[in-house]
Amino acid sequence: MIIICEAKATEAQIGELERTIRGAGLDIHRSDGEEYTILGVIGDRNRLDMGTVTLMPGVREVVLVTSPYKLASREFHPDDTVVRVGETCLVGGMEVAVMAGPCAVEGEEQIEACARAAAAGGAQILRGGAYKPRSSPYSYQGLGLEGLKMMRRAADRYGLAVVTEVMTIELIDTVAQYADLLQVGARNMQNYPLLTALGKAGKPVFLKRGMSATIQEWLMSAEYILSEGNPDVILCERGIRTFETATRNTLDLSAIPVIKHLSHLPIIADPSHGVGTRRFVAPMARAAVAAGADGIMVEIHPNPDKAMSDGPQSLTLEEFGLLMNRCRIIATTIGRRLGKTR
Amino acid sequence: MIIICEAKATEAQIGELERTIRGAGLDIHRSDGEEYTILGVIGDRNRLDMGTVTLMPGVREVVLVTSPYKLASREFHPDDTVVRVGETCLVGGMEVAVMAGPCAVEGEEQIEACARAAAAGGAQILRGGAYKPRSSPYSYQGLGLEGLKMMRRAADRYGLAVVTEVMTIELIDTVAQYADLLQVGARNMQNYPLLTALGKAGKPVFLKRGMSATIQEWLMSAEYILSEGNPDVILCERGIRTFETATRNTLDLSAIPVIKHLSHLPIIADPSHGVGTRRFVAPMARAAVAAGADGIMVEIHPNPDKAMSDGPQSLTLEEFGLLMNRCRIIATTIGRRLGKTR
Amino acid sequence: MIIICEAKATEAQIGELERTIRGAGLDIHRSDGEEYTILGVIGDRNRLDMGTVTLMPGVREVVLVTSPYKLASREFHPDDTVVRVGETCLVGGMEVAVMAGPCAVEGEEQIEACARAAAAGGAQILRGGAYKPRSSPYSYQGLGLEGLKMMRRAADRYGLAVVTEVMTIELIDTVAQYADLLQVGARNMQNYPLLTALGKAGKPVFLKRGMSATIQEWLMSAEYILSEGNPDVILCERGIRTFETATRNTLDLSAIPVIKHLSHLPIIADPSHGVGTRRFVAPMARAAVAAGADGIMVEIHPNPDKAMSDGPQSLTLEEFGLLMNRCRIIATTIGRRLGKTR
Amino acid sequence: MIIICEAKATEAQIGELERTIRGAGLDIHRSDGEEYTILGVIGDRNRLDMGTVTLMPGVREVVLVTSPYKLASREFHPDDTVVRVGETCLVGGMEVAVMAGPCAVEGEEQIEACARAAAAGGAQILRGGAYKPRSSPYSYQGLGLEGLKMMRRAADRYGLAVVTEVMTIELIDTVAQYADLLQVGARNMQNYPLLTALGKAGKPVFLKRGMSATIQEWLMSAEYILSEGNPDVILCERGIRTFETATRNTLDLSAIPVIKHLSHLPIIADPSHGVGTRRFVAPMARAAVAAGADGIMVEIHPNPDKAMSDGPQSLTLEEFGLLMNRCRIIATTIGRRLGKTR
Repeated sequence: MIIICEAKATEAQIGELERTIRGAGLDIHRSDGEEYTILGVIGDRNRLDMGTVTLMPGVREVVLVTSPYKLASREFHPDDTVVRVGETCLVGGMEVAVMAGPCAVEGEEQIEACARAAAAGGAQILRGGAYKPRSSPYSYQGLGLEGLKMMRRAADRYGLAVVTEVMTIELIDTVAQYADLLQVGARNMQNYPLLTALGKAGKPVFLKRGMSATIQEWLMSAEYILSEGNPDVILCERGIRTFETATRNTLDLSAIPVIKHLSHLPIIADPSHGVGTRRFVAPMARAAVAAGADGIMVEIHPNPDKAMSDGPQSLTLEEFGLLMNRCRIIATTIGRRLGKTR
Repeated sequence: MIIICEAKATEAQIGELERTIRGAGLDIHRSDGEEYTILGVIGDRNRLDMGTVTLMPGVREVVLVTSPYKLASREFHPDDTVVRVGETCLVGGMEVAVMAGPCAVEGEEQIEACARAAAAGGAQILRGGAYKPRSSPYSYQGLGLEGLKMMRRAADRYGLAVVTEVMTIELIDTVAQYADLLQVGARNMQNYPLLTALGKAGKPVFLKRGMSATIQEWLMSAEYILSEGNPDVILCERGIRTFETATRNTLDLSAIPVIKHLSHLPIIADPSHGVGTRRFVAPMARAAVAAGADGIMVEIHPNPDKAMSDGPQSLTLEEFGLLMNRCRIIATTIGRRLGKTR
Repeated sequence: MIIICEAKATEAQIGELERTIRGAGLDIHRSDGEEYTILGVIGDRNRLDMGTVTLMPGVREVVLVTSPYKLASREFHPDDTVVRVGETCLVGGMEVAVMAGPCAVEGEEQIEACARAAAAGGAQILRGGAYKPRSSPYSYQGLGLEGLKMMRRAADRYGLAVVTEVMTIELIDTVAQYADLLQVGARNMQNYPLLTALGKAGKPVFLKRGMSATIQEWLMSAEYILSEGNPDVILCERGIRTFETATRNTLDLSAIPVIKHLSHLPIIADPSHGVGTRRFVAPMARAAVAAGADGIMVEIHPNPDKAMSDGPQSLTLEEFGLLMNRCRIIATTIGRRLGKTR
Repeated sequence: MIIICEAKATEAQIGELERTIRGAGLDIHRSDGEEYTILGVIGDRNRLDMGTVTLMPGVREVVLVTSPYKLASREFHPDDTVVRVGETCLVGGMEVAVMAGPCAVEGEEQIEACARAAAAGGAQILRGGAYKPRSSPYSYQGLGLEGLKMMRRAADRYGLAVVTEVMTIELIDTVAQYADLLQVGARNMQNYPLLTALGKAGKPVFLKRGMSATIQEWLMSAEYILSEGNPDVILCERGIRTFETATRNTLDLSAIPVIKHLSHLPIIADPSHGVGTRRFVAPMARAAVAAGADGIMVEIHPNPDKAMSDGPQSLTLEEFGLLMNRCRIIATTIGRRLGKTR
């Protein structure tokens, strides 16, 4: 932390500042410039509240020199983290992972068709909601445990791993029994008790970005999981909220290179939730791969018009196959390989 | 739900639409205009997914005629809801409620000083965090149960009710034992399992608006609580996220008249979190009262520069007293009475 | 400008930095701390591009210590600026100014009725559009010169000053002939050639905040006018763009105390454009006065349902009278006086 | 326009509505459903103000069935518009256009180096600012006419077309003498007098999206140009303003498929302004091509660290060459060809 004093700060004000800093057990490097005095604070930045110092008399500005997250930062961990999901899928290395499946598991037949198409297209991971967070209490809330079991069986038939959302601490054990990757939904990105519990769950975590979360806040949420001892966190950009109404959210693809720069954690893009309309999904999925995403998550459905949840943003199984072919070539362009080797 | 067909929609497409609607157990009123056909759907709108219909061939636009929330709407419940908090405080009637206290409970002495100043200023409710949601896992997380007990004791000494945040389902019973009003923080506004549980908690709920929640989503979250049988929900505007960085959030005071128009639930403003800087709190608190808020929540601290959490936005006890005097007159101007009668 | 070097910056990198700074004719105060070196740049900050320095090897962060605007800052000009509009109205002192009138001038009768009601309610300034910026080329674009003349005549009959928008450099002289206060619309806040020309216009300027302008950018635009020699700039908050759709914009009332803190220029609030719906205008106008605005601008219309432009947000003449009575008392509460003395 | 009446609308209210509609010279198709009456308005929608009707007693909701722009819509003009820029470059067909050059023209040597590198990388159009809109009146404002001439000479030596910004109506003729494509900057997207004048300029127009413009508003601004008789408008996405601060703006790549769906006009992406930091430009340029952009605009500089304007976001000439190679393959993947044939 660096404290820049006001030009007109008195020696008494600076003295009070120094006492406050030392009182928190920290050391000071003082530099008196021509126009202002600068105090460099030496020691653990968490011992002093930045906001409080900011408001003290004589203070012009406080600059944090270190990022508020540590374990999630690339400074701390220069090499890319590669997360193993299920037995064979590695996320974050040279492969671009593909997660595909329906928004919600609706029945044996539907999830079977999706798993088959996902595997045929080259996906390694089957997605699907069993417990659904819905903004209306009157909307379809998912099949629950039955859905989990159906998804596991379908995934196993096609050699796929499983990712699904876990909404409460009580459900972690149940979901972890059937899924290989535990998803935290956008609405729970700052549900700290849930993050803390997932830090001890023993399975990799798929952390969606909150609807209006800054990249820094997102990495802070990852830090909650990492600091409990779970190193396997995969981030997922799924669109942020802006004033634009032509798309459901604004998929922030620039988050991909930014995260790659600031952190070592893998980052996936979810264009289906990002745009919310089927016809815009494929271009954005291609764009995500071109931007360097470590994977894409795509909603597919054997019959999107009849889907019980988020049908309008699901690709048909044919559209998905075509998209995979194009993404595969784009991945090659930037020296990567997309999906399962066939 | 009203479905407006495309000008060039074929009779086959319209027929398929009609089959889908009837298949969901709904009825149709068809009107063939000069340029387009309109289908009015009659029956429970939750039986048909708007998104799915939107994507069907021949559909130009789908209009929802009823709001997605019902119990929270003023249409359903024309009279203002008045919520009793503790034994004597009524929120939502002609009185403007005042909730004051520190961001976090830090110790007996601090909460005692706050309670005394709160009561002296005319507040009816003592606020304070015992379990704190913090964006960093390394930040101060609150005194927990000890903090709850301290707050209850201090409140009782001055005849105040208590409001405090509950972050997980497991803590509801504990918190409800000491608090009169259970707060849902902005980050948990869409934590549906928590909302559902609070709908059965038997105590009034104080629902903060999510950082990027639309007013409609906010009312949908209230609907989760109401639909479980708890009619006592108080809404709290605490600032939304925008591009502006001069204030921590943008306090959306226009939400006050909008909520009054759409809903019967009381609405409170929290200028402290809204602006995040002490010097901007008082003007915004006055503005909230002038805009017709049913109450204000203000952070106060006997020594803001030493506060362990959010000190920079806390008023000193003297500033709070002065603010109350001004707000009292403003309330009178619009025919209301602020705070406790003295 | 303060340059904080990276912990691992080499002496060669720091040397290159020092050469660049000195090459721009600036001086350096160097301070070598335990963890990082800090370079304080002494001299005119406009001689060095912050962005360029930020990207140089070895640089961690660049902090600007002075604000990018000067003439608009309260540091430079500690006392409140009071702007004379027309012969008798002073904006920015202890009086709270009231500007009222229709969105667009539509005819003699309409503007006459508005002027009469404005004066009766205590307004000092008549507003009205003669040249209208419309987002559609097919919308009503205003009466032009005829409208200006009508507005001037009506204003004169009731002893009011006139404010109206000027959209192009070519029109400045014409508009200045009839108006006392030249309005820059939100869409033109960063039309720098127009601002520069208004800096030489010899009349006070009413600068609306751009739809997505930060407060800093807004003050920079004021700086364009001030730096050309025109000291008479009045700022106007009229709502910013956010994700919320229940109101047309989000009226950012916290901009009022923030501007009061950062600048000496008067600030007015325009709730009519801020919310866009008649029933929400009065509460927000009251709130603006309570928040400390130096004035309010309100749209009124003798028959809002028949207005040719923005009718839905205009108050009826009766509603306006009632609002003025309430605002007058609120102004008194905070030690000010609203509108014309009667 | 379709007017949905309230369930409790009286026959008198509906009668008054019908009179208002007929009074505006429009026809009505009335449909009385079980729950509400619907009035379909037949005729030119610009004759009736939507807002006014919305506020009339008995009205629940007004739905616009036609888009507010016409000439810019794909409905009106189903085939893609291909704009010829200079003698040989076609924008909007199967080729993906490349525009490259410095932020600002700084001198003969710099623009010569950029033009050479642009041509070598396969660009068809040289970009560069001669008249610069700067948020500070104290910042470098460009070389003006001298800069235009330098750019033209450099472009001619390498067979490139020229695009540059025009900020005022008075400068259109001058700029049009040297440039092949006239750029409207983001800050001027709603400068309607400028748009109208460009509609008669006889040269193609490059219309940047405003910082907080919705896609609909952007197309409305294009409509201003088209409706004056100039069919050659190219749109440019350059980032929108959001709460995220890690990038300068949020490049909204989903605008590409959305524009392709709603309009026939070509759309280009400008990742340099979108992200504002050199290291994030290349991934976003690749992503734009993958998303189906009709071209990309990239800032390059022979020595970005010494640039006078926006240096931090300019690619070096080597980085640009590498980027072109990758984008060329990505374009092929989706059946297109990037840049000049070599």
